[in-house]
Amino acid sequence: MNFQEKTLKSEQVYDGRIVKVFKDNVELSDGQKAYREVVKHSGGVVILAYKDSETILFVRQFRYPMKEVMLELPAGKLEYGEDPFVAAKRELEEETGYQAKKWADLGYVYTSPGYSDEKLYLYKAEDLIYTKQNLDEGEILEPLEMSYDEVLKKINDNEIVDAKTLCAILRGNIL
Amino acid sequence: MNFQEKTLKSEQVYDGRIVKVFKDNVELSDGQKAYREVVKHSGGVVILAYKDSETILFVRQFRYPMKEVMLELPAGKLEYGEDPFVAAKRELEEETGYQAKKWADLGYVYTSPGYSDEKLYLYKAEDLIYTKQNLDEGEILEPLEMSYDEVLKKINDNEIVDAKTLCAILRGNIL
Repeated sequence: MNFQEKTLKSEQVYDGRIVKVFKDNVELSDGQKAYREVVKHSGGVVILAYKDSETILFVRQFRYPMKEVMLELPAGKLEYGEDPFVAAKRELEEETGYQAKKWADLGYVYTSPGYSDEKLYLYKAEDLIYTKQNLDEGEILEPLEMSYDEVLKKINDNEIVDAKTLCAILRGNIL
Repeated sequence: MNFQEKTLKSEQVYDGRIVKVFKDNVELSDGQKAYREVVKHSGGVVILAYKDSETILFVRQFRYPMKEVMLELPAGKLEYGEDPFVAAKRELEEETGYQAKKWADLGYVYTSPGYSDEKLYLYKAEDLIYTKQNLDEGEILEPLEMSYDEVLKKINDNEIVDAKTLCAILRGNIL
């Protein structure tokens, strides 16, 4: 099946600090015309950091879009063009105060492929050494530790509901 | 720790068909001022449908923000205010042609809590009966079947990179 969509017209409707928004008109492979809204985002990194084989580092923070305090893995935005691995090392240390001696690549995911190009790179970090938490301005968050079993229970109980966190937990624990 | 953020000013900067965008000024719990961009989205549903105990229904479609053909679980947007379970039944039948006699709630996730309020409700569907695929206008997609083992392998190989799909696979297979 031919799925390609051809851009007929693209208009930028918002240029923000975090997102840019485009309104495009496209032609589908069967000749139908359609309308697409696209949010552009610089992408980010997510770190599944094991303090020991049973203990995972989390952060708790207020998430303004939902007005809820959420439990998530350490994570952060990429600067445009930044090497994701450089960002992963920075974000882990800024948010939790830990550096890691051992890193593994857990691939990537798209968070909302229907309307956003946001791509998140997932990493596993082990052999941690504590240095010092060093948050960005305007960022208030609390690092904490949880056992793997507790994490699975909280996922099952809708107490961990952050998609990137579930993705990294799955990627870090299959095959 | 007090995490609350107080909205000082909220300005709508884009009002689209799929997303609305707001620029807010907030005050953090420590008195710092910060800036938040928020994408509002109606949310959606994701369906982990088992044709038999080993076989999962997928759809393949072109995703315009990435200009890539992606493998994802059947899913769809909520109408504002719609019951997610009603939407799940509709989307499964529209996209794959199947109705299900047995449904289970797999909770929910937020896809991008840093900047979007998009909430996806996850369901498991079993005991399937074929009726007829019936796509929305402007939607071209191909249903297909994959074994659970093949799904895990494709996740591990970055051939399934859709976050909501990984979330539903994890939620459907823990505890």
